[in-house]
Amino acid sequence: MEVKLIYITPNSEKIIEFAGRVSHESHEKITDDSHIKFIRMIKKLGHESVFEHAVASFLITGVSRSLTHQLVRHRIASYTQKSQRYVDESNFDYIIPDSIKKNENTFNLYKDFMEICKKTYKDLINLGIPKEDARFVLPNATKTEIVLTANFRELRHMIKLRGSKEAQWEIRKVFIEILKILKKHAPIVFEDFEIEDGYIRCKNDKE
Amino acid sequence: MEVKLIYITPNSEKIIEFAGRVSHESHEKITDDSHIKFIRMIKKLGHESVFEHAVASFLITGVSRSLTHQLVRHRIASYTQKSQRYVDESNFDYIIPDSIKKNENTFNLYKDFMEICKKTYKDLINLGIPKEDARFVLPNATKTEIVLTANFRELRHMIKLRGSKEAQWEIRKVFIEILKILKKHAPIVFEDFEIEDGYIRCKNDKE
Amino acid sequence: MEVKLIYITPNSEKIIEFAGRVSHESHEKITDDSHIKFIRMIKKLGHESVFEHAVASFLITGVSRSLTHQLVRHRIASYTQKSQRYVDESNFDYIIPDSIKKNENTFNLYKDFMEICKKTYKDLINLGIPKEDARFVLPNATKTEIVLTANFRELRHMIKLRGSKEAQWEIRKVFIEILKILKKHAPIVFEDFEIEDGYIRCKNDKE
Amino acid sequence: MEVKLIYITPNSEKIIEFAGRVSHESHEKITDDSHIKFIRMIKKLGHESVFEHAVASFLITGVSRSLTHQLVRHRIASYTQKSQRYVDESNFDYIIPDSIKKNENTFNLYKDFMEICKKTYKDLINLGIPKEDARFVLPNATKTEIVLTANFRELRHMIKLRGSKEAQWEIRKVFIEILKILKKHAPIVFEDFEIEDGYIRCKNDKE
Repeated sequence: MEVKLIYITPNSEKIIEFAGRVSHESHEKITDDSHIKFIRMIKKLGHESVFEHAVASFLITGVSRSLTHQLVRHRIASYTQKSQRYVDESNFDYIIPDSIKKNENTFNLYKDFMEICKKTYKDLINLGIPKEDARFVLPNATKTEIVLTANFRELRHMIKLRGSKEAQWEIRKVFIEILKILKKHAPIVFEDFEIEDGYIRCKNDKE
Repeated sequence: MEVKLIYITPNSEKIIEFAGRVSHESHEKITDDSHIKFIRMIKKLGHESVFEHAVASFLITGVSRSLTHQLVRHRIASYTQKSQRYVDESNFDYIIPDSIKKNENTFNLYKDFMEICKKTYKDLINLGIPKEDARFVLPNATKTEIVLTANFRELRHMIKLRGSKEAQWEIRKVFIEILKILKKHAPIVFEDFEIEDGYIRCKNDKE
Repeated sequence: MEVKLIYITPNSEKIIEFAGRVSHESHEKITDDSHIKFIRMIKKLGHESVFEHAVASFLITGVSRSLTHQLVRHRIASYTQKSQRYVDESNFDYIIPDSIKKNENTFNLYKDFMEICKKTYKDLINLGIPKEDARFVLPNATKTEIVLTANFRELRHMIKLRGSKEAQWEIRKVFIEILKILKKHAPIVFEDFEIEDGYIRCKNDKE
Repeated sequence: MEVKLIYITPNSEKIIEFAGRVSHESHEKITDDSHIKFIRMIKKLGHESVFEHAVASFLITGVSRSLTHQLVRHRIASYTQKSQRYVDESNFDYIIPDSIKKNENTFNLYKDFMEICKKTYKDLINLGIPKEDARFVLPNATKTEIVLTANFRELRHMIKLRGSKEAQWEIRKVFIEILKILKKHAPIVFEDFEIEDGYIRCKNDKE
């Protein structure tokens, strides 16, 4: 699994401050580091709508179709995903859950099954079945890639929900990578999220 | 595949008229059948936002996970879907595309493959793999069920897009069933859509 | 100010339970009153998306344009509002804030001003100015009416935000009326909200 | 009225192409100017969802509260607006419609009325009325400022709707300014919109 930043709003924290200060007409208070106090205050007051003025776009590769089926349920975001209707999947790659990998029996069972999947897919294609129908044999484990574009408010919501201990392991890994990237570019906006033992902890449960 | 109406806004076309007339304060024009002219005018003017005041909720069963992955990309709607993380899928049912069914070779190949899927899933479960990881071997063809709730404006958009000749066959079938139900309860709102040779034709391309 | 229910999903709490149980395929657990425990559990787990399958539609009259400007900022809802571009406002009605009404000086000042507004508006109309331009003199206090349709999840969010002590008084009053209506039709879904001394208290701050 | 670009996705057309090509895994086709053909094809096919991966953010000043009430009805966008609850409006500026300005009678009537508004507002403030209640006398004409952030797909939709001949004059002016800016930064995405005699013409009515 890999998460790559496509772009992020330049100077996002300064832009959030600028946009947020329109509400009280307080632009005269802007200094080099005034965004720090401003962003912390915004979070405290729960006025997170100003975080919508900054966005980030990610290319997420090497994840399962299970993951993307879950991911696209977040409706306040934009997606473009590799299409199994148009792309040939004869040599598809697949995700292996840790629980399966760590036991030789299940690991072999799983790998053998994936070879049967590939063979069945190719046989169907060779027998003239169109890709959009042959794909019905592809497993949830099939690797896919997806572009996710979302604003900081929604990204904060996703990180909180999908990075928590209760979240499913694959989506949690994705949002840990996303959080690492966001912390580099917008350290104050995401400072209340901490990565700890493979999950994300929110220091401030008030939001 | 089956589509069952869970509920629909009662007297939806009268409610659309009532709501729409708030804009021009023209409630005195309401008669027993005034909604007919009103709704046609709304469509002509392109003021479809008033169609948002009526909603319908459907239970869609016997469809593939491919279909639901595509369906939930429509973001202006609400969904609840059968979870493969929590429900045991040892005896999962599956979709068979017509292109595969009509050829004995591909049909047999497909059916045999599905039995291998079931066996692999069950073996993994028996070897102690949790359902949320065993599901990685389940194919796109696996039958699922989903509740879809959406307003009439969005349903009109979905029907147009997903019922067209260019749409994928499974989702087209679903929206033909949805349209049949909607035409019974809101005949004027959906009168510009016609079912013809297995797809949906929109008589009025202006929208 | 008056809030009138236009319609609400019939048997909304049973429908929420039915939709919600699709996720775990647990429809066999449905009894006459099983929705009570189910809905409470949903709230505890924070799985509020199932509340989206029920909706309510309200006609809100006798409120200011200030209120509607604030209301329509809630984006997960549908609105139709009386248009000042098309409706003649020569005899517009207006809201009087309590702070102004309780002091004779401010009250008189306010009433006199409103008469000047009306006269100016009428003069402009009589001088040939179209309604859509004459409306520029109409004050925020001008009464308007609006239809609001939203699902229960969003209504819960609005009630929490707009009914709180910190909310502006006019919008708080509207959501107290909305809550009263919703409590009659969906008592379990809204049982954690209580009306107390003119504001809404949320018993469960966890959500 | 003034529209100022706060930021726009850098290299937005290249990013749209990159994101769009994920669907067919066709990144090997990217050249220096391949985005031109790609974006035109996207529009032809009606696959506008890939335009959501680029966004722009604008500061709009010197517009009326009528305009912003209308603008914020577009729900697939983010807004932060100057608040009349917190900002003192004793010296508010105001919009003058052309229809009123070009006739001396109506112009004088209008200007005199605005002076009365200001005086009434200040009197109320001086008599101890809080800003959030004194604002009820402020007219629709009162100038405000607002930050609008939206993705290119929604901006295309807004431009088409609000720039047309039928649109209200003030919002049309705003979107002409927005279009001018967008055409500089993303000429291909917005090439089908042309400014002509004070309105926006869409060359391609197919969308």
